[in-house]
Amino acid sequence: MTTYTAAVAGASGYAGGEVLRLLGAHPDVTIGAVTAASSAGSRLGEHQPHLVDLADRVIQPTDASTLAGHDVVFLGLPHGESGRIAAELGDDVLVIDCGADHRLESAEDWTTFYGSEHAGTWPYGLPELFVGESRQRDALAGVKRIAVPGCNVTAVTLGLQPAIAAGVVAPDDLVAVLANGFSGAGKAPKTHLLASEGLGAASPYGVGGVHRHVPEIIQNLTKAGGEDVTISFTPTLVPMARGILATATARLADGVDAARVRSVYEQAYGGPGEGEPFVHLLPEGQWPTTAATLGANTAQLQVAVDSAAGRLVVTTVIDNLVKGTAGGAIQSMNLALGLPETTGLTTTGVAP
Amino acid sequence: MTTYTAAVAGASGYAGGEVLRLLGAHPDVTIGAVTAASSAGSRLGEHQPHLVDLADRVIQPTDASTLAGHDVVFLGLPHGESGRIAAELGDDVLVIDCGADHRLESAEDWTTFYGSEHAGTWPYGLPELFVGESRQRDALAGVKRIAVPGCNVTAVTLGLQPAIAAGVVAPDDLVAVLANGFSGAGKAPKTHLLASEGLGAASPYGVGGVHRHVPEIIQNLTKAGGEDVTISFTPTLVPMARGILATATARLADGVDAARVRSVYEQAYGGPGEGEPFVHLLPEGQWPTTAATLGANTAQLQVAVDSAAGRLVVTTVIDNLVKGTAGGAIQSMNLALGLPETTGLTTTGVAP
Amino acid sequence: MTTYTAAVAGASGYAGGEVLRLLGAHPDVTIGAVTAASSAGSRLGEHQPHLVDLADRVIQPTDASTLAGHDVVFLGLPHGESGRIAAELGDDVLVIDCGADHRLESAEDWTTFYGSEHAGTWPYGLPELFVGESRQRDALAGVKRIAVPGCNVTAVTLGLQPAIAAGVVAPDDLVAVLANGFSGAGKAPKTHLLASEGLGAASPYGVGGVHRHVPEIIQNLTKAGGEDVTISFTPTLVPMARGILATATARLADGVDAARVRSVYEQAYGGPGEGEPFVHLLPEGQWPTTAATLGANTAQLQVAVDSAAGRLVVTTVIDNLVKGTAGGAIQSMNLALGLPETTGLTTTGVAP
Amino acid sequence: MTTYTAAVAGASGYAGGEVLRLLGAHPDVTIGAVTAASSAGSRLGEHQPHLVDLADRVIQPTDASTLAGHDVVFLGLPHGESGRIAAELGDDVLVIDCGADHRLESAEDWTTFYGSEHAGTWPYGLPELFVGESRQRDALAGVKRIAVPGCNVTAVTLGLQPAIAAGVVAPDDLVAVLANGFSGAGKAPKTHLLASEGLGAASPYGVGGVHRHVPEIIQNLTKAGGEDVTISFTPTLVPMARGILATATARLADGVDAARVRSVYEQAYGGPGEGEPFVHLLPEGQWPTTAATLGANTAQLQVAVDSAAGRLVVTTVIDNLVKGTAGGAIQSMNLALGLPETTGLTTTGVAP
Repeated sequence: MTTYTAAVAGASGYAGGEVLRLLGAHPDVTIGAVTAASSAGSRLGEHQPHLVDLADRVIQPTDASTLAGHDVVFLGLPHGESGRIAAELGDDVLVIDCGADHRLESAEDWTTFYGSEHAGTWPYGLPELFVGESRQRDALAGVKRIAVPGCNVTAVTLGLQPAIAAGVVAPDDLVAVLANGFSGAGKAPKTHLLASEGLGAASPYGVGGVHRHVPEIIQNLTKAGGEDVTISFTPTLVPMARGILATATARLADGVDAARVRSVYEQAYGGPGEGEPFVHLLPEGQWPTTAATLGANTAQLQVAVDSAAGRLVVTTVIDNLVKGTAGGAIQSMNLALGLPETTGLTTTGVAP
Repeated sequence: MTTYTAAVAGASGYAGGEVLRLLGAHPDVTIGAVTAASSAGSRLGEHQPHLVDLADRVIQPTDASTLAGHDVVFLGLPHGESGRIAAELGDDVLVIDCGADHRLESAEDWTTFYGSEHAGTWPYGLPELFVGESRQRDALAGVKRIAVPGCNVTAVTLGLQPAIAAGVVAPDDLVAVLANGFSGAGKAPKTHLLASEGLGAASPYGVGGVHRHVPEIIQNLTKAGGEDVTISFTPTLVPMARGILATATARLADGVDAARVRSVYEQAYGGPGEGEPFVHLLPEGQWPTTAATLGANTAQLQVAVDSAAGRLVVTTVIDNLVKGTAGGAIQSMNLALGLPETTGLTTTGVAP
Repeated sequence: MTTYTAAVAGASGYAGGEVLRLLGAHPDVTIGAVTAASSAGSRLGEHQPHLVDLADRVIQPTDASTLAGHDVVFLGLPHGESGRIAAELGDDVLVIDCGADHRLESAEDWTTFYGSEHAGTWPYGLPELFVGESRQRDALAGVKRIAVPGCNVTAVTLGLQPAIAAGVVAPDDLVAVLANGFSGAGKAPKTHLLASEGLGAASPYGVGGVHRHVPEIIQNLTKAGGEDVTISFTPTLVPMARGILATATARLADGVDAARVRSVYEQAYGGPGEGEPFVHLLPEGQWPTTAATLGANTAQLQVAVDSAAGRLVVTTVIDNLVKGTAGGAIQSMNLALGLPETTGLTTTGVAP
Repeated sequence: MTTYTAAVAGASGYAGGEVLRLLGAHPDVTIGAVTAASSAGSRLGEHQPHLVDLADRVIQPTDASTLAGHDVVFLGLPHGESGRIAAELGDDVLVIDCGADHRLESAEDWTTFYGSEHAGTWPYGLPELFVGESRQRDALAGVKRIAVPGCNVTAVTLGLQPAIAAGVVAPDDLVAVLANGFSGAGKAPKTHLLASEGLGAASPYGVGGVHRHVPEIIQNLTKAGGEDVTISFTPTLVPMARGILATATARLADGVDAARVRSVYEQAYGGPGEGEPFVHLLPEGQWPTTAATLGANTAQLQVAVDSAAGRLVVTTVIDNLVKGTAGGAIQSMNLALGLPETTGLTTTGVAP
């Protein structure tokens, strides 16, 4: 069996740390260079004390020469930096970008939401994405560049795409409100992200269509078959370190009842042990909790039909750092390398 | 100056405790009997250690004879119990029900959502409620029965009624998703309400139009001028003791822009020091946080117009136990007794 | 009745914000200038959205000319800055320093723990402090300078001083371990204070006798009658915004039993309504919780005698920002101004 | 390679759920019967939604006939129940009791602290326990009964035993104060364990030498070489779901300095990759955080010498459900079955 070597840039941050955590459990990967910017030169254990086996690794600077020579390079960098690094790494290296740079296909959307020049589009690392009748996983075999989706995007896309693809809801008036753990906001210290501010508080951010995940959601749901997709998207910070609970609603098409919706989602994903390995519809009567996905590469969903309001409500939970970032990255890596898709990934969460 | 005496039934619970906390700061009220069911006979301090001045009060049983003889009686009882008690108290006593029994005007809605016989409708204790051109406060002067609104209902009603009354949104496809603190679920011990389950987790409940606050929201927004109101309403539990963040959205009417919406909300509520004493539109660019309302009788709102999605987004924060329950109750009491509406109530929260 | 004017320096921080919150409820004080350093020029509401009545105040720069002309000036500044400001304010102004500069009597201790030159000692703002047979409150009447104690110091001093003064424990081998809310660490953004780091985690800091509150505790307990006081002091950060739970232990003197200890604490403080207005021994069988003191100027204590271990255990809870900082400051201000000590301060916490 | 079958009693509780989580990752064990009392007949997924692979397992009743026929039986039962079940299981089955029944060697201590008749002593499942010069792991090979230690006991024992064994501290005046996550209190619903009560609060329990873990700590530290061990032990509940931070102090023996203490702990445990596989002394200057151990079978320690107070301070973090319960159980199972001690267990935590 081949063993692949992987380097991780941004190793002192949350995305990089989570990639390292998961790679440590991957049977076919050996961890090579761990790099970062301002923390280069320090022990990894100072920044990631939970990565006990890697505690004494010294963080190297993030540059192409350090990252070169690995089979796989994961990038957990601020947006705008990955294109340059990737260009220096050569086409034989599998580069997996956990940042935003290469997710969008529309250069115009990129410029509108990020205000800079578009660095180009990479194959999109959401294997379960509906692309017409097929799935995005089919497009990932053998690729050398992967753009990992945004964490909110993963939750909302998984929640709504079955209904949109099946035509049981209208795609032109979607609403999603998310409860987000703080790790999604990154590790750079800012006043509003302090524990003293966040404990005991809930607050929205990026309201009114300005959040950078909006065009990415629309891109995905359009691929899933939606025409003229629009979505009102509001993330909110709530006092947890990890996790996303996405509550998404859409207007029901005429004549669609709860049984039909349930059938659509069962066909799309199946329950545990069936269909999608990492995306599961819960049994009727059971509502999802983010706690059930902590540390696991799973999404759990539940659906409800509100006949009076004429809306489908889909609630989806993921761990933003696993299925929402690092787990999705490794799942995509497996596909790109030709490994079984589930290798090294768990469906078992850490709860309570 | 007259001093009124008040009794509180359900004094060991969260609603009752909060009424007592606020009454302790009310200059015109003396606290009389404190009663409860299973904890009768014990010191109040065992159950409400924060109410230092009342710590040595002995809880009496909840019955009409104990509650009689006070000017005001607050009921913080399980639903279904207040009608009987109130009937025994006589029409000269001001009875304020923090429970659900008397909120709904439609007996049919009551039966559909609560499954029992309707106990009758009382004057509704949300002074800021739009009733056509007037406000509900005008209907509270001198009344002897008050039904305090549900906490979620207060947040969603305050958030949406200005837009609906002004016709800047369509009332027939509203969506609201709420982040709720655990005290809203009461003090009865249940497994899913344990700290071990709730810490680090977010989860929805009452999804799909089955929550009992739905008909009450529709009742309110209809009074505010909405026709054929429907709302998709999803509350979610997040790890905080108190607080509600309500994110509500509605389809914008043609030609409505951000300036028009802002003007509508400014006229409806004003900022601090203007208009409504307890409901404030935040300055542009500032998003609300539940922490700012902790312990205070305030609602803080912010609005955003999402042109691409064609939706208004209103985010509203309250303390579920204050503006959402006990503060609203005392504000209504002030109006019923002819006291200045703001007597004994604060706009200052406890943060961080 | 005289009304005093008060200015608050450091108004955008936690200590300054809490002083403002409490002054807002003080009947004899009008809030004058609010000042800060880097946030000068912005609305106070941006930084302290819970202070609704002051939201539109514009923050002024912290300098002597802005602060001059008030009867009282509260300083919530980084240590090292208050001495200079105070020198410019003149002796007719009551200056209350919430920082550390003037707490220690020993210049040597100051230099050892703070590494700079000592700025001099001010009257110490812990009214309940035992000073031999008298109380520190007697030393505060009419003073023009007050040094507010450290929050941890207040909790540990109140917990241990009765036992030490009565000789029921040995003062030379004290141990205190504290669970601390994050607001005690201030509002400056640092990685280890992020919500993502703090949620779901407990960690110690300042271990091994290096914390700057150690010499201050020893100073206090020596005044209370202890000889050769030594204390092992370990604060720990736990996931709450406010609150200190101090668990302090001391070796019991020979022949001391639980009844004797209880009697000592009852005499020292009394329960609610007796003795000390803000420091209360809980009834037997009831353990303190920080939640009961949130927003209140109270300390709640419980004592236990562990005969097998030969140790007294005293658990004390306070709100670090109220009794631990701003409440103590205002209580001391009342004494200095000749107002009733409890003016404008509450014993009622906000719970749950 | 032999595969062992394991049954888990108490599968709907926290200890049982965690045993199942870890067994799911164990390469040599197949999960057989999962049993419980009141939840028998329901899907395991209802109670443990994070155990995706086992979600459709139906919980069976806890009785000997259901548990029989497995190689290993884990008991996560209320104390007092394991002895009877174990008696029916026969001596060829490896029975691992996560409860308290068989931990204490002194029947007198049992009766004093638990108030019932002692069920007998089983081999003690703390492999790292110092037993004179040897380690408890040597006593676990081939045994058929194992008593898993209490979670607090594990943290305090690991923290103090090196110092006691080496004689660098006095064993007769130990003090330990713990910050405990709520899962340690179990899953039975009780008012004081509600999220509404626990969020934002810290409170002590079992104070004054009455906690049932006290005699077990003394038993361990005596085995480690302590004479006349006494300990003042205070656990406190803080707002986290999992984790224990134990701050333990002991009087230093004459002439012991920081270098000597550090050497003792390095020799006892080593850092990551050395010595003990699951117990690690952190590098100087790095303080432990419970977050680093979440989900992992590790203890992380740091030591400090407080010369002024004459005390050693040891801070130890574990995940109460892993190293404190289920992980320790599986580590002990490995030893009993002759498997490598670390099989199926991880040192990598889930953070942030």
